[in-house]
Amino acid sequence: MRKVAILGVGHTPFTFLAEKTAVELFSEASMEAINQSNLKVSDIQAMFVGNVLGDFSEGQGMIQSYAADEIGAKNIPASRFEGACASGTMAIRDAFMWVTSGFYDIVIAGGVDTVSKMGTPLATRTFAMFTDAHYEYPSGLTFPGAFAMLAHLYSAKYSITLSRLKQQMAMVSVQSHKYGNYNHLGQLHKVITIDDVLNSGMVTSPLQLNDCCPFSDGAAAMILASEEIAKRLTDKPVYITGLGQASSGRFSAQKEYLPRLYARDVSVRQAYAMAGITPKDVDLCELHDCFSIASIIAAESLGFAEFGHGGELWEKGEADIKGRIPINMSGGLKSKGHPLGATGAAQAIDIVKQMRELVEQERQVEDVKVGLTDTLGGDGIICNLVLQRGW
Amino acid sequence: MRKVAILGVGHTPFTFLAEKTAVELFSEASMEAINQSNLKVSDIQAMFVGNVLGDFSEGQGMIQSYAADEIGAKNIPASRFEGACASGTMAIRDAFMWVTSGFYDIVIAGGVDTVSKMGTPLATRTFAMFTDAHYEYPSGLTFPGAFAMLAHLYSAKYSITLSRLKQQMAMVSVQSHKYGNYNHLGQLHKVITIDDVLNSGMVTSPLQLNDCCPFSDGAAAMILASEEIAKRLTDKPVYITGLGQASSGRFSAQKEYLPRLYARDVSVRQAYAMAGITPKDVDLCELHDCFSIASIIAAESLGFAEFGHGGELWEKGEADIKGRIPINMSGGLKSKGHPLGATGAAQAIDIVKQMRELVEQERQVEDVKVGLTDTLGGDGIICNLVLQRGW
Repeated sequence: MRKVAILGVGHTPFTFLAEKTAVELFSEASMEAINQSNLKVSDIQAMFVGNVLGDFSEGQGMIQSYAADEIGAKNIPASRFEGACASGTMAIRDAFMWVTSGFYDIVIAGGVDTVSKMGTPLATRTFAMFTDAHYEYPSGLTFPGAFAMLAHLYSAKYSITLSRLKQQMAMVSVQSHKYGNYNHLGQLHKVITIDDVLNSGMVTSPLQLNDCCPFSDGAAAMILASEEIAKRLTDKPVYITGLGQASSGRFSAQKEYLPRLYARDVSVRQAYAMAGITPKDVDLCELHDCFSIASIIAAESLGFAEFGHGGELWEKGEADIKGRIPINMSGGLKSKGHPLGATGAAQAIDIVKQMRELVEQERQVEDVKVGLTDTLGGDGIICNLVLQRGW
Repeated sequence: MRKVAILGVGHTPFTFLAEKTAVELFSEASMEAINQSNLKVSDIQAMFVGNVLGDFSEGQGMIQSYAADEIGAKNIPASRFEGACASGTMAIRDAFMWVTSGFYDIVIAGGVDTVSKMGTPLATRTFAMFTDAHYEYPSGLTFPGAFAMLAHLYSAKYSITLSRLKQQMAMVSVQSHKYGNYNHLGQLHKVITIDDVLNSGMVTSPLQLNDCCPFSDGAAAMILASEEIAKRLTDKPVYITGLGQASSGRFSAQKEYLPRLYARDVSVRQAYAMAGITPKDVDLCELHDCFSIASIIAAESLGFAEFGHGGELWEKGEADIKGRIPINMSGGLKSKGHPLGATGAAQAIDIVKQMRELVEQERQVEDVKVGLTDTLGGDGIICNLVLQRGW
């Protein structure tokens, strides 16, 4: 199996109410990635697209075929992946396999969704299709409910008062907005304070509005190529060195295990083992902060803090730009936005840009050699991880 | 790259209004495939599922995770593929890559949908998401409209009177029902005559009710494994020797090319080249007869008849059980049913059973060594092909 590198990357602005369709957005991101790679469209051999809600938001299925045609990549195989919010990284993992195996040399992978167009009620309803629709959703378990429950369980299990946990959670959101404010591709450009979080509207106790990421529209795409081609086209190839993917049973069936998420714990072992590294080797992490509590829980399973001590990463500045493990310097889902299918690809792309020192100076981490992208699908029952290493 | 074989196969009955959910149906098919392979659930390393409309028919996304958990395949990676009606073969093609590359040794692949549950109006509306939703569907281009247009174009291009073409189309449906009547897993068990077709209700001229496949619920799954494992577990491994996948621009943009479908023509070249064979080497074909005209058009691009002469395969009995190239001995989509995500997997499975001489005697083709599965996605803008060869 040969090494696989990321060449150019493309990333539309993440916004509310995008004027463009999902096909147009993914095409825009794809063309940016192709141009940045010094490739022609005709070099692209296959397309792998994460897309969750295209059928609902625009009444358009199989958008991958239209996107391939839109950029002029005539008649290539184009596949759509749906793993809820992990769809983008699911597509990337799959694209990796087609290149590492030698079947293709140059492919495009990423994702897109136009969620905000649906409006909040329908978006909320459709998101609930990614919990167990037959048994859990009818009991009221939407995503905010699931993650609010995790916060309560976390507080109880680790004997952290809810008031302290809410402070920690607020710090997560404050940091995300601090750096997201600099990200010109992000959705929310607004510095917030801990008081802003604690005074924001209650969504589902203990989650308040500023503990929750927004609904977003956008696309992200990257070129994956064999090492040989990468070395010919760029002096800054970013290699995909580790991947993890796992599913688990429905959220409520994991009750003994929560607030840890089983799918993530399995994926983490896979990814680090494949790359042959440990959490200590990671210089930068983009993790799945759909809700502030999700960041704390993720940081622990990813190996950056002991269980029950994740929040301290933010309390002590260890997750900050000059800390031990900078987290979500893109602004995260909270500030940058969360267009489902695009999210994981956008996280991995921000890490590529950090490695190439191409992000805004205010959020540029020094000397990033190893990065980790973490994505959750649904109410945490899918997890996809991508480990990247610079040239 | 190593050889990949199909071991056990599983196939639920295809029905109207299945009592079971998509997760239950796919689990049932999966367990049949696992048991038939003399494997344990814990041997399964990954799951690849084609599912098109789960979100609409049952309000359930990411069914692959729930299905993996339902059969007890704890925490394996499970991915969902959507390529409209080609989703099942898209999943199989992808699963093939993960095994041939050596990353996994034993995986499960297939698909499921529960379409009929939605009722005809919603099913028709959701199917139209797999035409171009922004420009074509608003002009009234649903699937029957698209294929009716192909029939008119075919008649004009090859100077075959519509009346003769309708006779040929009727022969396609009559043959499908003849053999589908014997298929105990099929949906429609009813022998029909040419008059039955020509007297059935008009859907979209020239397509009448008996030119159209039904809405269906069902699942199909197969075990893919490396050659080494296959040889240990069965004396009848069926190898996947060729694969093709391509997309094309929107249906209306192919106007100069129609009634041929560009995606199929590209896929055909890929699949035969990969297997190193020609159409003459194929002993049995299951092709995508969503409408009777689709069979005639498919048979030509697949290389079984000259262009403009596809219908003669049925007129002359060459597509019949003792003919030159038996086609759709399962009953095809027309009689067996068409539960989108399951369809391509079910076709490939029927070929496996034919090779192992496990189908009903009345539809058993003699000495099948090489089989071809053909699936179209949407209004023909995706095509996935699978070539299989017996032990």
